[in-house]
Amino acid sequence: MRLHFLGTGAGVPAKERNVSAVVLKQINKDGDSWLFDCGEATQHQILQTSIKPRRITKVFITHLHGDHIFGLPGFLGSRSFQGGTGPLTVYGPAGIKDYIETSLRISKTYLKYELSVIEVSDGEEFTEDGFTISIRQLDHVIPSFGYRLVEKDQQGKLNSEKLQSIGIEPGPIYKQLKNGEKVMWNGRLIDGNHFLSEPKKGKVIAIAGDTRKCKAAADLAHKADVLIHEATFGSENEQLAKDYYHSTAAQAAETAKVAGVNTLWLTHISARYADGKESALLMQAKEIFPKTYIAEDLLEAEVD
Amino acid sequence: MRLHFLGTGAGVPAKERNVSAVVLKQINKDGDSWLFDCGEATQHQILQTSIKPRRITKVFITHLHGDHIFGLPGFLGSRSFQGGTGPLTVYGPAGIKDYIETSLRISKTYLKYELSVIEVSDGEEFTEDGFTISIRQLDHVIPSFGYRLVEKDQQGKLNSEKLQSIGIEPGPIYKQLKNGEKVMWNGRLIDGNHFLSEPKKGKVIAIAGDTRKCKAAADLAHKADVLIHEATFGSENEQLAKDYYHSTAAQAAETAKVAGVNTLWLTHISARYADGKESALLMQAKEIFPKTYIAEDLLEAEVD
Repeated sequence: MRLHFLGTGAGVPAKERNVSAVVLKQINKDGDSWLFDCGEATQHQILQTSIKPRRITKVFITHLHGDHIFGLPGFLGSRSFQGGTGPLTVYGPAGIKDYIETSLRISKTYLKYELSVIEVSDGEEFTEDGFTISIRQLDHVIPSFGYRLVEKDQQGKLNSEKLQSIGIEPGPIYKQLKNGEKVMWNGRLIDGNHFLSEPKKGKVIAIAGDTRKCKAAADLAHKADVLIHEATFGSENEQLAKDYYHSTAAQAAETAKVAGVNTLWLTHISARYADGKESALLMQAKEIFPKTYIAEDLLEAEVD
Repeated sequence: MRLHFLGTGAGVPAKERNVSAVVLKQINKDGDSWLFDCGEATQHQILQTSIKPRRITKVFITHLHGDHIFGLPGFLGSRSFQGGTGPLTVYGPAGIKDYIETSLRISKTYLKYELSVIEVSDGEEFTEDGFTISIRQLDHVIPSFGYRLVEKDQQGKLNSEKLQSIGIEPGPIYKQLKNGEKVMWNGRLIDGNHFLSEPKKGKVIAIAGDTRKCKAAADLAHKADVLIHEATFGSENEQLAKDYYHSTAAQAAETAKVAGVNTLWLTHISARYADGKESALLMQAKEIFPKTYIAEDLLEAEVD
């Protein structure tokens, strides 16, 4: 799995950073991708990458501010225009359905794929495509959610070479052994577990919407491999962050520390930190949580 | 007055051409600008120019397809965020009000300026800011309008040097003479018209939305200084143009010729004519109407 940041700025588009969007790529063997937030010109950013809109099968919206949703109608339409025929599901706060339906209806945009829009609320949990997804409401001026994705652990692989070396050839027995069952074979009890590699632990990814520092974000990110958290301001603007229901980089780092995550990605950076000034935010965060990175538009990173 | 093309492509954004938007700059002494159509990422294109969103006082929408309106909510919000406090009027087909109101309401976008949205229909005419604006419905798959702007002629300038040379000093009499009145002065009849330069003819600009070749477009552009007309396809795709209610470059040129315009600008060019292939469209049009130009994103041109 890989992260591909498309828009990492705050509020309005700027030359260095577009408004919010990040793609989680290769979430399954089909190579599907999931998109989180879809600010205006997200489809334009996609044009700069190898991402195929038709391979995006889910869109998760954290909250309804324009810098997180105004790219959605265009993305949905272009996905159809560019040959997307597979179904797409959009998850988001109450109101997202009205916004999408009105935009598509008035613009006479007809989609050649099945679109489902699901309005979510605090505390929901569901399983889709091998991930358990839980949703928590954070602390913002309008309802803003975070998404926690827990990938299913991958079963260990059956060592067929080792089985064949003791004379057990491929057949129905392999399926039983792969499930870790004990099977009688030629008068011997064969334990599947002895022929399985270690199961691979699924990844845990937490993606928070705009928020003040809050317990819900830390809960959401508990022991996650990756937390993507907003850092609109630096510590010198802590009061501004509070007034506008945003976080400083240091506050994002405190959340990452409390949650015990592996890696923290800072995003949603105010345009005032352009021209290299964002390095101050990174330093402030790293003092509290050393394994912090700062996102940039079009930057890709492995989830590890 | 100057034209500044922001988006000159058709249907969906492409690397070479963004979706529709063109600005008419310096429409008055205050340096106001008017925007025609507002496809997604129009505000991003504006970031590449010296255009100030707060100086845009009117937006004219030709029709409601996404590639002409999906940049509107973001533009309206950013105009406010970036210090725009003066009123803004949006003109467009029925439905534009619902689209704008729904987008702003759901995204909780609060504007610090007065926004008026006026839904227009075929045959309307009104005068605003020194322009008479008439509206004609063209021939597209959904209602699509063209806007004809007729600038008021500018009165001739009073030659104060010449007046002073015969002893007439500045005073209330100047106002009368400037209006072309005849005034008694020291027993002499002074004719204002003898002291005025030639009046300056106002410009006529016609901006058509998406359309097949049609009489309404030619009427709209009658004797215009500039006609901006779509040219989605080349002549080899005339059937496609017809099927999708668009025009070929040659058809746009025929309209320009019938209308007797001075200059034709081709825009709304399909992405299939990228990488220099658009020169074929230009040649096809110039064979019929020699004073044809092809628009490019971010290209500026004087209206003359």
